[in-house]
Amino acid sequence: MDTSVESLGECKIKNPLRQVDWVEDNDRILFNLSAGLVEECVKKGQAPISFLKAGPKRKIYFDISKLKCAIVTCGGLCPGLNNVIRSIVLTLYHTYGVTNILGIRYGFQGFIPKYGHPIMELTPNRVREINELGGTILSSSRGHQGISEVVDALERMNIGLLFAIGGDGTFRAAAKICEEIASTGAKIGVIGIPKTIDNDILFLSRSFGFSTAVSCASDVIGCAHVEANGAPNGIGLVKLMGRQSGFIAANASLDRRYANFVLIPESDFDLDGPHGFLAVLEKRIQEKKHAVIVVAEGAGQRYCGVEGFDNSGNKVLGDIGLYLKDRITEYFGENGIEISLKYIDPSYTIRSVRATSEDSVFCGFLGQNAVHVGLAGMTNIMVGTWNEEFVCVPLGLVTTGRKQVDLKGKLWSSVLEATGQPSFKHQVMDGARES
Amino acid sequence: MDTSVESLGECKIKNPLRQVDWVEDNDRILFNLSAGLVEECVKKGQAPISFLKAGPKRKIYFDISKLKCAIVTCGGLCPGLNNVIRSIVLTLYHTYGVTNILGIRYGFQGFIPKYGHPIMELTPNRVREINELGGTILSSSRGHQGISEVVDALERMNIGLLFAIGGDGTFRAAAKICEEIASTGAKIGVIGIPKTIDNDILFLSRSFGFSTAVSCASDVIGCAHVEANGAPNGIGLVKLMGRQSGFIAANASLDRRYANFVLIPESDFDLDGPHGFLAVLEKRIQEKKHAVIVVAEGAGQRYCGVEGFDNSGNKVLGDIGLYLKDRITEYFGENGIEISLKYIDPSYTIRSVRATSEDSVFCGFLGQNAVHVGLAGMTNIMVGTWNEEFVCVPLGLVTTGRKQVDLKGKLWSSVLEATGQPSFKHQVMDGARES
Amino acid sequence: MDTSVESLGECKIKNPLRQVDWVEDNDRILFNLSAGLVEECVKKGQAPISFLKAGPKRKIYFDISKLKCAIVTCGGLCPGLNNVIRSIVLTLYHTYGVTNILGIRYGFQGFIPKYGHPIMELTPNRVREINELGGTILSSSRGHQGISEVVDALERMNIGLLFAIGGDGTFRAAAKICEEIASTGAKIGVIGIPKTIDNDILFLSRSFGFSTAVSCASDVIGCAHVEANGAPNGIGLVKLMGRQSGFIAANASLDRRYANFVLIPESDFDLDGPHGFLAVLEKRIQEKKHAVIVVAEGAGQRYCGVEGFDNSGNKVLGDIGLYLKDRITEYFGENGIEISLKYIDPSYTIRSVRATSEDSVFCGFLGQNAVHVGLAGMTNIMVGTWNEEFVCVPLGLVTTGRKQVDLKGKLWSSVLEATGQPSFKHQVMDGARES
Amino acid sequence: MDTSVESLGECKIKNPLRQVDWVEDNDRILFNLSAGLVEECVKKGQAPISFLKAGPKRKIYFDISKLKCAIVTCGGLCPGLNNVIRSIVLTLYHTYGVTNILGIRYGFQGFIPKYGHPIMELTPNRVREINELGGTILSSSRGHQGISEVVDALERMNIGLLFAIGGDGTFRAAAKICEEIASTGAKIGVIGIPKTIDNDILFLSRSFGFSTAVSCASDVIGCAHVEANGAPNGIGLVKLMGRQSGFIAANASLDRRYANFVLIPESDFDLDGPHGFLAVLEKRIQEKKHAVIVVAEGAGQRYCGVEGFDNSGNKVLGDIGLYLKDRITEYFGENGIEISLKYIDPSYTIRSVRATSEDSVFCGFLGQNAVHVGLAGMTNIMVGTWNEEFVCVPLGLVTTGRKQVDLKGKLWSSVLEATGQPSFKHQVMDGARES
Repeated sequence: MDTSVESLGECKIKNPLRQVDWVEDNDRILFNLSAGLVEECVKKGQAPISFLKAGPKRKIYFDISKLKCAIVTCGGLCPGLNNVIRSIVLTLYHTYGVTNILGIRYGFQGFIPKYGHPIMELTPNRVREINELGGTILSSSRGHQGISEVVDALERMNIGLLFAIGGDGTFRAAAKICEEIASTGAKIGVIGIPKTIDNDILFLSRSFGFSTAVSCASDVIGCAHVEANGAPNGIGLVKLMGRQSGFIAANASLDRRYANFVLIPESDFDLDGPHGFLAVLEKRIQEKKHAVIVVAEGAGQRYCGVEGFDNSGNKVLGDIGLYLKDRITEYFGENGIEISLKYIDPSYTIRSVRATSEDSVFCGFLGQNAVHVGLAGMTNIMVGTWNEEFVCVPLGLVTTGRKQVDLKGKLWSSVLEATGQPSFKHQVMDGARES
Repeated sequence: MDTSVESLGECKIKNPLRQVDWVEDNDRILFNLSAGLVEECVKKGQAPISFLKAGPKRKIYFDISKLKCAIVTCGGLCPGLNNVIRSIVLTLYHTYGVTNILGIRYGFQGFIPKYGHPIMELTPNRVREINELGGTILSSSRGHQGISEVVDALERMNIGLLFAIGGDGTFRAAAKICEEIASTGAKIGVIGIPKTIDNDILFLSRSFGFSTAVSCASDVIGCAHVEANGAPNGIGLVKLMGRQSGFIAANASLDRRYANFVLIPESDFDLDGPHGFLAVLEKRIQEKKHAVIVVAEGAGQRYCGVEGFDNSGNKVLGDIGLYLKDRITEYFGENGIEISLKYIDPSYTIRSVRATSEDSVFCGFLGQNAVHVGLAGMTNIMVGTWNEEFVCVPLGLVTTGRKQVDLKGKLWSSVLEATGQPSFKHQVMDGARES
Repeated sequence: MDTSVESLGECKIKNPLRQVDWVEDNDRILFNLSAGLVEECVKKGQAPISFLKAGPKRKIYFDISKLKCAIVTCGGLCPGLNNVIRSIVLTLYHTYGVTNILGIRYGFQGFIPKYGHPIMELTPNRVREINELGGTILSSSRGHQGISEVVDALERMNIGLLFAIGGDGTFRAAAKICEEIASTGAKIGVIGIPKTIDNDILFLSRSFGFSTAVSCASDVIGCAHVEANGAPNGIGLVKLMGRQSGFIAANASLDRRYANFVLIPESDFDLDGPHGFLAVLEKRIQEKKHAVIVVAEGAGQRYCGVEGFDNSGNKVLGDIGLYLKDRITEYFGENGIEISLKYIDPSYTIRSVRATSEDSVFCGFLGQNAVHVGLAGMTNIMVGTWNEEFVCVPLGLVTTGRKQVDLKGKLWSSVLEATGQPSFKHQVMDGARES
Repeated sequence: MDTSVESLGECKIKNPLRQVDWVEDNDRILFNLSAGLVEECVKKGQAPISFLKAGPKRKIYFDISKLKCAIVTCGGLCPGLNNVIRSIVLTLYHTYGVTNILGIRYGFQGFIPKYGHPIMELTPNRVREINELGGTILSSSRGHQGISEVVDALERMNIGLLFAIGGDGTFRAAAKICEEIASTGAKIGVIGIPKTIDNDILFLSRSFGFSTAVSCASDVIGCAHVEANGAPNGIGLVKLMGRQSGFIAANASLDRRYANFVLIPESDFDLDGPHGFLAVLEKRIQEKKHAVIVVAEGAGQRYCGVEGFDNSGNKVLGDIGLYLKDRITEYFGENGIEISLKYIDPSYTIRSVRATSEDSVFCGFLGQNAVHVGLAGMTNIMVGTWNEEFVCVPLGLVTTGRKQVDLKGKLWSSVLEATGQPSFKHQVMDGARES
């Protein structure tokens, strides 16, 4: 795994920051925390995997007085976008003295003249209280734009440093932009700032907005709990975000522990059969008279999957929430048990709220570190966090996969403990033959 | 309009309350506040319409030491249910010394032996902090139960005073229960406490939970606003509660004034045609690039209506939210305009939260007054609020209709001012011929 | 009581508003809701007291195209200030087409050249999301400014209509400004919008920010409840706003009913003696091991009062919170009872938050009605609410006194019921001799 | 640094947990994440410092059917106490089948017969929704109790496993209890669960309640920001918790970045002199007309320090908040500058609220892991978190010091960047002479 990082060239300018412990070029943060693994590795003479540490460097690459920076937000909304924008602007302006900061409107569309989106000038005054608002003052968009058109725009606008806040797709585009820039010999840095409400980006301990999303999702599960307890045989069914990774569902379920069943994309489940989800749910309803179910949107796609891809190239998912709602209703109907099912799909009300303190503080660090490493001439990287330290990860590495819930790790184990839910799988055991 | 109130008989017992200004038997609150109307009425020799004032009376009907009371919550959840329960229990117990208070589980089902729901004993300790929780600790249910079975249960359980917290349907049942009680000569009082999240009960200025619902709904409209501004041609569409009355939609829209269009059951609208909603929406999108639409669930039923009634006898509504979502998507698709529509249906997350302070204080008064008038032997009434005073309204009067938004009143005028929305009607005026 | 209202002169211009039910010149709202009192009054041939109804009028006084309006916020902060400003601006701009709206900075200081405060231009874009923020974008100040200097400024700036958002002191100044204007023959309208977090303005059912304050105060009482229960002999003592009126303390105590003692300015209490507060508190601690006390800042001034007046001419109060804290500590110390007293004084954290929905909707109506009646040429009035209707009250009438909690009314009775607290007075009764 | 961990003896009983990845006896988590340091260490043939990983073990020590557990909460309140209690109870009961769980009331007082505090039985039903409430259902207390009396009580009550939730002082007592137990040969395990709202416990990445506290503190700073902007020369001064460590002040300041000055115990400052705090503050007021100051309670004790210790043996602090308020008022008064200073001391309203989602989820893990390692026979340890993993740290090691803000680390650097504040120190440099 290659964790080495690109830069625009040799840095010659003294960093104007005062009173700071610099991050040195060889400061690296271990990938793995297990004492045993690391010792073994070193003893074998191998360097354990590590990431370059992010932070202020002794020397910077750009001439501050001439530098023009740009910020763009891409993809779906996520709590904290405004906080990251604000942190970048305040750090550029107050910490480094960069006064020329442009906001690109509506994602990469803002670079493409045909859309006619105006550029927004970003000043401390403009971003003064944007942290109080959800969404992004820059607006966003999905969908691919021509890479060379974007690079043309960067050169035409004389931008030296671009901060691209987005997810997977944005990072793939950003990596291509870097490639194109490199081929033209331009000296434009591109720093990726990871935005994924699902917390599913590789080599990233946590993503901003995730804590906020878990908090909102937990409130919704609380509502489902109240509804489930408010009627005879009440069932609260909540669909949460999580296309390929069930982090929101798992964490939100652990907040108040009101969920009795948690279904995530990583853990396949049978609906039917004596060990299937429906039978287990029936048993619970018979015994406890109420149940709360949390399902991540990407779970159970083998039951409800559809064809197709959206503008950003993401696979369109079948609606597992509505599917389960119908199946459960049907199942209990067939079994002559009257239930009261309340289905809740809160998605847009989760991603559009303003960031919690936890996320907001984190966004501040993220923005600061993005500026530090960007000014130091690094490029084609994501600034993220790994085990409580801020690090730089090559965009090419980030986009090789997707972070998922480890079914044997402490998060999922904790969910299993908290819910007591079984595997919902047709189990072959005790010498049973399947054929 | 007959606003006179039934009672169980003559009151002979001195009210044990201390330090209180009693409500006298002839204390009545004017129905109409217009000075002109009232003066005219009096001059004509007519008594202006008025309601009996609620509050503590000098004499009470029941022997406290022998009295057994019961509380039941019926129909859908509504913020404040636990607060009302708590206020009734604390007032009965601490203010009057009634120690025998039963909680009936799952609405009127709890009276019917076949369901086997256990009775819950209600003490100050049991209700100590239930105000911190949404829902109802008693649970609720929909659907009719046999009136005589309920009366049998009341007699068998030796209940002297029943507090029935519910809406229209509950009040109709309660009135029948009173009738049946009267026919048996039993001395059982029934006090209705109005619960309607839609705020649509007649002769009731406000209902508990409504303020909370407006607050939550406003947050959701805020989310829609953020989403609409977060994408090119963003449209936020929010469906809110309001089966026959658009009070939640109207009030929530007035909170932050982010809504550009508000559709309610009381105000018919055309979707198509040059003055129809879709054309007006298109014009806004062309001009402003984003729009927020709020629709009450009972609006536009001529477009999406379906047949049938639910367990409580309420007409099943077609889903105007999903209908609009589809029609808007289709319309803009046909007109070649790419939009980004985000649809939000928050219902269960609104009705299951805990009450705001505003509602909680109100619930406290409601419970106290229900106890005051119940102990004073009044029966077959609703305890409510009219123009900031607490009053008693005969159940028979309450159930004669439904409160709706006055299209010429200050609420709807304010919405029209705030949104600037037109009538969406095919208008024939200024001598124009349509044919 | 003279409730008649001044105006600038005859209105000749047709109101440009569409689709509206006009408020007619003789639409008046009854002051008293008691059917008996009103009937009696009419029968005697007297007109019952009533207030002019506020709302849009058929004719307006000003030529919209030439009108310049100004808004000023005075005195202490109060939740909802930004909402009122926003509503005035949006109504002036969108409903009536007034585009020339000035924001006066730092209260009346903003009119006085020597302070050098710049004027703020108020547009829909400027006020777009200010409702999300607490405080006032105009800032405020206390203290008197020269009346003629203010009138000079109004004339120099060519302002036709001034919206003055403030309390008692502001209204007194506004009335003098109107007098001075009248003497110069200028045609400048002045509309007062009542701002009092204490809800203590006469002839005003409710003031904006009060609901928000009660909600925050209730949260704080919740904290005191938790603290009191968290330690042996825990006492939670909360000082709330309420200089001369205990509305916040009373209402906040009724929210969750965690307060065991509520002390307000209107109800004198003895600290010492066998029936005094300290003895009663000791009894409770002995029995229940914890207690929550809520005290309004203006309560018990005979114990802790000081001399002097602040910039706004308000009497400086002694700190009853700290005084009680010390006295309670001392008392229990002397009696050898170890207590754990937690004192909370939340004031600035209550008045600086953003408005709740309840208040925000109300602020919207207030701003709209202020504009309606201001454009209709009325002047020297306060726009407020009385029994759920919006009315105009002469400033001269408003400033004749202060609204206080009626010790025999339903609010205080409810507090006494909820807390069960006695009168804390040295009582001579039943013919007992004290000597 | 000795990180090895005590246990009660050999474990022989198979863990009844299903579907779990066990934590092995040699699973250890690195103390240091720096790749360079760790490699160097290994190359030198030294084992890098590491902590034993917490989690479910293959074998447990106790016979579940006979085991009686106890939970005690000590010291000041902290958000999340109820969540930890709940997680321990639910994990003991549902995951392991332990049904005998006692709640000790009012801290260690609950063990001492003379106080007469009743024991609380803890069942899933009892703890069902306690997470919705702040504080601790067990109540707490400060102060030392006799170690041998506590051990006597443990033995008399036949408790096998004690969960002690508390801070420094509690851990010192717990360590002594373990010593005493060891000397009697009893087989009683003691697990410490770190509770410190200040986040100042050694070898602990984060403590529960801290995130909640930062969130509340940030809201308060928001209030101070509104107040500071609401008046001419407005100064918002906020005192936050942080006796010896400024983590809350630093983090809360980074949330919305409204603070202009942050004063913490770790960073000494001069008040007077040309580079002192007061002079710098004056400069800001002259330039910007408003300022927000955040001060941790333990800062500047050389100015306001007092003598003495509280019941828990903590040094009593002088009130730096009030001191600064007076000094600032005095300073500006002397310099003839009228200011409007608003002082906010929110402490009890921060520590008594319910936990945020972030903290609640964390509390859940903490409780689960405490049970896992407790049942595995470990004792005399704290269960905490280090670099996102759960670990066991010997109590003797934890109490050797206190975690403080590293003035050269990323947190404080970020604060300095965000505020732009200088060092406030009388600086002698560049060869300058001061005399």
